[in-house]
Amino acid sequence: MTTVQDYMTTLGRQARQASKALAKANTGMKNQALLAMAQVIDDQRETLKQANQRDLAAGRAKGLEPAMLDRLELTDARIDTMIEGLHQVAGLADPVGGITDLEFRPSGIQVGKMRVPLGVIGIIYESRPNVTVEAASLCIKSGNAVILRGGSESIESNQALAACIHAGLDQAQLPGTVVQVVETTDREAVGALITMPDYVDVIVPRGGKALIERISQDARVPVIKHLDGICHVYIDDDADVAKAIPIAINAKTHRYGVCNAMETLLVAQSRAAEMLPELARAFADKGVELRGCDRTAELIDCVPATEADWTTEYLAPVLAIRVVAGLDEAIDHINTYSSQHTDSIVTENYTRGRRFLTEVDSASVMINASTRFADGFEYGLGAEIGISTDKIHARGPVGLIGLTSQKYVVLGDGQIRE
Amino acid sequence: MTTVQDYMTTLGRQARQASKALAKANTGMKNQALLAMAQVIDDQRETLKQANQRDLAAGRAKGLEPAMLDRLELTDARIDTMIEGLHQVAGLADPVGGITDLEFRPSGIQVGKMRVPLGVIGIIYESRPNVTVEAASLCIKSGNAVILRGGSESIESNQALAACIHAGLDQAQLPGTVVQVVETTDREAVGALITMPDYVDVIVPRGGKALIERISQDARVPVIKHLDGICHVYIDDDADVAKAIPIAINAKTHRYGVCNAMETLLVAQSRAAEMLPELARAFADKGVELRGCDRTAELIDCVPATEADWTTEYLAPVLAIRVVAGLDEAIDHINTYSSQHTDSIVTENYTRGRRFLTEVDSASVMINASTRFADGFEYGLGAEIGISTDKIHARGPVGLIGLTSQKYVVLGDGQIRE
Repeated sequence: MTTVQDYMTTLGRQARQASKALAKANTGMKNQALLAMAQVIDDQRETLKQANQRDLAAGRAKGLEPAMLDRLELTDARIDTMIEGLHQVAGLADPVGGITDLEFRPSGIQVGKMRVPLGVIGIIYESRPNVTVEAASLCIKSGNAVILRGGSESIESNQALAACIHAGLDQAQLPGTVVQVVETTDREAVGALITMPDYVDVIVPRGGKALIERISQDARVPVIKHLDGICHVYIDDDADVAKAIPIAINAKTHRYGVCNAMETLLVAQSRAAEMLPELARAFADKGVELRGCDRTAELIDCVPATEADWTTEYLAPVLAIRVVAGLDEAIDHINTYSSQHTDSIVTENYTRGRRFLTEVDSASVMINASTRFADGFEYGLGAEIGISTDKIHARGPVGLIGLTSQKYVVLGDGQIRE
Repeated sequence: MTTVQDYMTTLGRQARQASKALAKANTGMKNQALLAMAQVIDDQRETLKQANQRDLAAGRAKGLEPAMLDRLELTDARIDTMIEGLHQVAGLADPVGGITDLEFRPSGIQVGKMRVPLGVIGIIYESRPNVTVEAASLCIKSGNAVILRGGSESIESNQALAACIHAGLDQAQLPGTVVQVVETTDREAVGALITMPDYVDVIVPRGGKALIERISQDARVPVIKHLDGICHVYIDDDADVAKAIPIAINAKTHRYGVCNAMETLLVAQSRAAEMLPELARAFADKGVELRGCDRTAELIDCVPATEADWTTEYLAPVLAIRVVAGLDEAIDHINTYSSQHTDSIVTENYTRGRRFLTEVDSASVMINASTRFADGFEYGLGAEIGISTDKIHARGPVGLIGLTSQKYVVLGDGQIRE
C-alpha cells in the first residue's frame, strides 16, 4: 500500500518533470491550453454541478456552516466567472523569457536578466473550488507546474475541475502532470507538500490565518503569504474633508471580510472635532461598531478601545479609531501595529505625503485612495495568486511576475577572465 | 547573568530600531558614513593589525591550518582593499527609494513600485575579517541594519573593525546599532540569530557547504545562499575551437577554489576527437587531473569517472569530462547534475545557443564565455554580498538590489472602490 508520503513524492517528482516541459512551451501553447480548458468547463457544466452537488450534500450532512456551503457552491454564474478568468489570463502578457537590462561590460561580455518560471508551486486552499482553476491558470501562464491541495469539502468539485484542466492541457499537447490536484483528503498530504524542497519551489497558502500560520511554521520551502490585513487610513492635518470621509467609509464598509479593508482609522488631533462626528454618523448608518481611544471618546459615542483593538483584524463591521498628534505619531502607530499590508494617508500636504510613502513599511502605501484598491486587478496585474506581506521576493498583490524569477544571461564572444 | 539568547534578542531589537532610522537616511548620509569608515580604518591601521596579530597568535596556538591563517591575516594590502571597497560602494547608485512603473489605472489611481530595504540582515561568515567591512558597507548602502557573526578565530580583528565602523556611523549621525558585530563566540548565537523572524528579515551565510547547509536547515527566516558551484562548460558541435579551448582552460584553471570554476566539461561527440587531446595536453601542463567517461577514455588518458564525479565540487585541479551525443544530452546532464550556479555553452549555432539559454535552469547561463565571469563585479553590480542558487527573490550574484525589495505606491486623488 502506498503511504501518503509516497503518493506526494510521486506527485512532486511528476510535477518537477512536467515543469521542465512547461518551461519550454511557448506562449501560444500555454494560451491554447487555457482557452481549451475554458471550452471544456463550458461543455462540462452539468458534470461539474453534479460533482459540486455531491460536495454540498456531504457538507450539509456534516453540518457545515451556511457561509462555508456558500463558498463551496458552483453556480452557473461562478462557472461563467471561471471561464472569463481563463480568457483573461490567456490575454495577459507572458512574463517568461523576457530579457531585460542587457548591457555590455568592460570585459566585452553582455550581461542581462531573463525572466523564468520558479518551477513547481504548491497551493493550499480551503473550500472555494474556483481557486482550483484560477491558481492553475496563473501557474500555467507563468510556466510553473502546480500541485493543488483544496479543502476536503470540495474534493468532488476539484476532481471534476481537474478533469477539465487535464483535457485542456491535452489539447495543447502539454502533460497533464503540469496541474495535479491532490486526490487524498488526508491531512498528512499538506505536511508532505510543504516539506519537499527537491520537488516544490514555493508554497502559496490561501485561507484563514490559522491555516497559513501552521503552514509557515512547518514549511521547509519559501511561502508567499500574508497572515493579517490590519490596514490603516490616516486623516492628516491637511486632509481634504471631501476625500477623507468617502475614503474612510469606503475602506471600512465596501466589504468587511477582506484583507484590504481598513481596521483602524487614525485622525490628526487638529481635525478630529470636525471629522469624527460626521464619520460616526456615517458609520452608524452602516451599522459599524466604533472602538475609540480616550480622545475619540470625548468627541463621539464609542466603545473604549483596548490595546488588543490595535492588533485585531475584525473582518467585520467594527472599527478602531485613534486620535494622534500628527504624522509622526501616525507613522509610529502604523509601523508598530500594522500587518504591513496596506496603509493610506489622506492629505493635501506634499511633504507629509512624501514622508508617509517613504517611512511606512507596508506592502502597499497610498495617498488619497481607499485601501480597498490593494488588489491584483486594480493594480493592473490582471489577476493575483495572493497577497504577500513578506519582504523578500514579492510584496503586495502577487501576479504572474511574482511566480517568476530572473536568471542572468551572459553573451560572450570567447571571453575569458584575465 | 544574560543568556546568549537574551543577548541576541537585544541585538535583534536594536537592529530593528536602527533599521528604521537608516531607512530614513538619505544617500548623502550613507555615503558620508562609508567614507568616514574608510578614513578611520586608514587611521587605525596599527590598532587593526595589532588586534589581528592577537587572532593570529591564538590561531597558531590552536594549530589552525596555514590556509586558514592566511585568510585570517590583515595585511596592509588587504586593508587597502577594504578602504577601496568602501569608496566603491559609496560610489554606487543608491537603490533605495527609486519608483518605477508608475502608471495610471482605469480607476484614476497611479500605481508604481518603490524600492525599499529589506530591514535587518544577518550575516554569518568564517574567518576572513574583510567580510566584516564588505558586508557592512553593502547593507548600509542598501539601507539595511546588519548583525554580523564572524568566525571565532577573527573575533579580535572583527571587534577592532567594528569600532572603526561605529566611528564612521557616528560621524554621519547614524546609530551605531546599524552595524552590530556579535561579541560572543558562543555557537548558540548563530542558532538564535537565524530563528528571530521578528528582528531579522534575511540571513546570508558565507562559508563552507557544511555551515550553509546547517543554517538553511535550521533557519526560520529566508536564507540567501548557494551550497555548491558545480559549473559546466558544454562544447557544442558548432563550437569555434579558438574559443572553446581557452574558455575550458580558463573556467577550470583561472582559480580552483572558487564556486564559479568549471567542475565538469561536456563535449559533443562530433568534436571530441579533435578537442579532447589538445585539452588534455593543456590540462596536463597545468597539473589538472582528468576523470573521464568511457568515450573520453577512448581518446585521452584519464581516471575513469564514476557517478559521484558528476556531483562533486572539486574546488581543486580535478576535472570531470563527459562526451555527450549533442545539445539534448548536454542539457539533460546539466539539469540533472548542475548545482544551478553557472553553466556555459560554446557554440556558433544560433538555435542551440538560444535553446541553452532558455532550457538550462541555472542562476547564470552563458554563451561563449568563461564561467568565471559569474561575479558581482563582472556583472556590473559593483560588489556582491553572495551568490544565490535559490529560485525566489534573487538568483546569481546578489548586490545592492538583492538586499532590497519593492513595495507598491498608490497615488490617488480621493478615489474609492465602487
